[in-house]
Amino acid sequence: MPPSPYHQLEDRVRRFSALDDVAAILEWDLATMMPPGAADGRSDQVAALKAVRHGMLTAPEMGDLIAAATAETGLDRWQTANLREIKRKWAHATALDEALVTALSKAVSACEMAWRQARADADFATARPHLERLLGLIREVAAAKADALGLGAYDALLDEFEPGGRADEIDAVFRDLGDFLPGFLGQVLERQAAAPPARVPRGPFPIDRQRALAVRLMEVIGFDFDYGRLDVSHHPFCGGTVDDVRITTRYDEDDFTSGLMGVLHETGHALYERGLPREWRGCPVGEALSTSIHESQSLLLEMQVCRSRGFLGFAAPVMQEAFDGDGPAWDADNLYRHYTRVTPGYIRVDADEVTYPAHVILRYRLEKAMIAGDLMPADLPGAWNEGMEDLLGLTPPSDAEGCLQDVHWYDGAWGYFPTYTLGAMAAAQIFDAARRADPAIEPGITAGDFRPLFTWLGAAVHSKGALLSSRELLTEATGRPLDPEIFKTHLERRYLA
Amino acid sequence: MPPSPYHQLEDRVRRFSALDDVAAILEWDLATMMPPGAADGRSDQVAALKAVRHGMLTAPEMGDLIAAATAETGLDRWQTANLREIKRKWAHATALDEALVTALSKAVSACEMAWRQARADADFATARPHLERLLGLIREVAAAKADALGLGAYDALLDEFEPGGRADEIDAVFRDLGDFLPGFLGQVLERQAAAPPARVPRGPFPIDRQRALAVRLMEVIGFDFDYGRLDVSHHPFCGGTVDDVRITTRYDEDDFTSGLMGVLHETGHALYERGLPREWRGCPVGEALSTSIHESQSLLLEMQVCRSRGFLGFAAPVMQEAFDGDGPAWDADNLYRHYTRVTPGYIRVDADEVTYPAHVILRYRLEKAMIAGDLMPADLPGAWNEGMEDLLGLTPPSDAEGCLQDVHWYDGAWGYFPTYTLGAMAAAQIFDAARRADPAIEPGITAGDFRPLFTWLGAAVHSKGALLSSRELLTEATGRPLDPEIFKTHLERRYLA
Repeated sequence: MPPSPYHQLEDRVRRFSALDDVAAILEWDLATMMPPGAADGRSDQVAALKAVRHGMLTAPEMGDLIAAATAETGLDRWQTANLREIKRKWAHATALDEALVTALSKAVSACEMAWRQARADADFATARPHLERLLGLIREVAAAKADALGLGAYDALLDEFEPGGRADEIDAVFRDLGDFLPGFLGQVLERQAAAPPARVPRGPFPIDRQRALAVRLMEVIGFDFDYGRLDVSHHPFCGGTVDDVRITTRYDEDDFTSGLMGVLHETGHALYERGLPREWRGCPVGEALSTSIHESQSLLLEMQVCRSRGFLGFAAPVMQEAFDGDGPAWDADNLYRHYTRVTPGYIRVDADEVTYPAHVILRYRLEKAMIAGDLMPADLPGAWNEGMEDLLGLTPPSDAEGCLQDVHWYDGAWGYFPTYTLGAMAAAQIFDAARRADPAIEPGITAGDFRPLFTWLGAAVHSKGALLSSRELLTEATGRPLDPEIFKTHLERRYLA
Repeated sequence: MPPSPYHQLEDRVRRFSALDDVAAILEWDLATMMPPGAADGRSDQVAALKAVRHGMLTAPEMGDLIAAATAETGLDRWQTANLREIKRKWAHATALDEALVTALSKAVSACEMAWRQARADADFATARPHLERLLGLIREVAAAKADALGLGAYDALLDEFEPGGRADEIDAVFRDLGDFLPGFLGQVLERQAAAPPARVPRGPFPIDRQRALAVRLMEVIGFDFDYGRLDVSHHPFCGGTVDDVRITTRYDEDDFTSGLMGVLHETGHALYERGLPREWRGCPVGEALSTSIHESQSLLLEMQVCRSRGFLGFAAPVMQEAFDGDGPAWDADNLYRHYTRVTPGYIRVDADEVTYPAHVILRYRLEKAMIAGDLMPADLPGAWNEGMEDLLGLTPPSDAEGCLQDVHWYDGAWGYFPTYTLGAMAAAQIFDAARRADPAIEPGITAGDFRPLFTWLGAAVHSKGALLSSRELLTEATGRPLDPEIFKTHLERRYLA
């Protein structure tokens, strides 16, 4: 008897997945190892791989198999969820005709190139026509996907990063947070001004020692170097595959603290990947649930755990020993002040936990308006600066520190920004549930024992893969859907208590 | 007007080639970077890539396009050669049915695994049944390819490594060399015993300094690090792609001389790849001509150039400076004696230039006999030891130093061994022609200026890609087909003059 349509589908997607893994290793290689002269050849390689992958996913038999599998009876809960995710990916891939895919790919390349120059020159005008052209195509994509998925235009874009995510739910939580933050920030800054300033440990910090410290803390937390690596790239990331997780960082000889925290952030991503359900590897249901849940796992480790006073009590002497440090800058209390310092600024990637949501809320509002056709690129710099003034009380000195600072829109990632702050809120909510559920978790962190935390996270989050929606996952793990109150309580406890 | 069948074929093969490049990067990664736990996932990735590649090459349209392109008129010389090479690759790929490909792949995995243990235990008996099974399948492969290509069984296997190569031509040159070597070796050993022994520079040699020295000499020779890398792997190789050549080595802190010469050998491979015709990238005619010609380029650089007294006159002070060396071991004359020392031994990969051909001739004779059915694996150890006695006057203490030493047969590479010595002979012949053609070449080498050499090699060898057969290439570049006399003369000049 031949395998059922569902099982034929499963075989196929496992093959796609192996090719996705190949692409992930190539991407890591490009960022860490590839010599500059190889760039053209590499883009041919990636294009060939993408074309093969796209051809396999959009092959006519796929639609037939999906229809037949949907009619199949007797699928279990995981298989049903797997089929749902296969359908979703297939719908995204087949929603766009080839002409649109090609036009988009060219517009993205041109716009990203123009953006590099425009940002360097702080000259939005030169990027603007490219952004207009790209936005036009993104709106076509949104319309086509909205049609295929039965969603609104913005939701159709969001769905690629945040399956099942809806703008009206985000609107509600961001409104809540947007109302809370400006007043809260004022209180935090006032309080901070009254406290002793943080001392910054003085370097130079040799790179080999920084690396050894990062490796040591990664291992303490639970990263297994038999299944991953730590390397250097210009933009730190967590890539590779579930059994070959490749974290990158960059080292600043004058300041180890920021790079180290970046590594711990990526370690949170890595441990999520490592904890995904082994029996569903290579299937969509065995993959990470969404961008926001992925970010919740990195931010849980970075913001909830590693910037806490408890963890720093354990880590401060480890850091001090790593650099033979001396003096009050190495005290846990001082390092805690340093790692929880709040400074409103223009640049999102440099932002602290308190001001970061403002950067995201601004971008979310603006991109929604642009997708809806209510905001034109010509008016973007003005709208950006107004929003910054409202949310953080700052006006960027130029568009380089304003609407040109992030590559996202210029390289075609629309509907991505809100996941950062959804992830930060989910991180607070999941960690809050974890420490209530197992009283050994917080003392463990203080003692450098992460097993209780990751045992709980493994069971409640990692091992679920994409079985549930984000809403269902949060409800099962924490007792309720995303609730900004928990994030606000976390901020109040940390910054005002 | 749609592109002609020939141009459609060309478009297709360029896409295959991009996937081959991907596979090459993965292979490098596996050997240099991949953490151990990723092995299973990586083998799925490589299998998926291979399946896609094989499916594209053996798609039914390929046969039709090849037939139509063959009937096309007006193809130029390069296009004609490209079509010939496409046909050849297609014939190799389509000669085997799927059942045989699958059986072979499983037998190779099982046999290689059994070989690892058997070699560790010096116990041929445990590998024997696996080798018997594998040889049975290799003979089926040879028969199927012989049928498809209109060649003899051994020639059909050889053709994959040495397009157009023929066992009867190899028989003739190996007979000549086999007659010459034993007597010559006796003379060399006698003469060497009478000369002062080579002093070996004393370590330890820190790895970072060894690497810096290797990089410096690679750059002097012409390796451009904008288009390649130097890393570490257990078995050194030259991999990657034409614009991203990835050389590996390993470092021994007690002896830098052997690893360094290995790097220079791989640099010879690398510069061949870099010199292949740019306008034919991604096409079979733009690839390296054959395994023996590839090896001729590495051995030309290593054996003809870098082990010469002239080069060592330039390199000895560079080496000495790299390690702050002191004493007579760093004299160019001493290093030349060290780098040209002849020592008959059991192990091929440790062999010097004089005894290496004996190792190859032995393997060639034995594999030909096994393919012909005239030698059974059961009789291999005995036949091996007899051959070693005849050719080098040595009997291996165990099969680990005998017929178990090389992985080749056990991982399915049959028809490969002769290319090492064909390459060594071609290297001597090409270098001989080069220095006659341009009198600036030898003084250049002595002064550390490799431009005259690589200008000539680029024009005569590298830029030809796979336009010509090996025989035609050698005839155009040197005035005659492969002639063992030139190799013998080289050996006599270096070891007896």
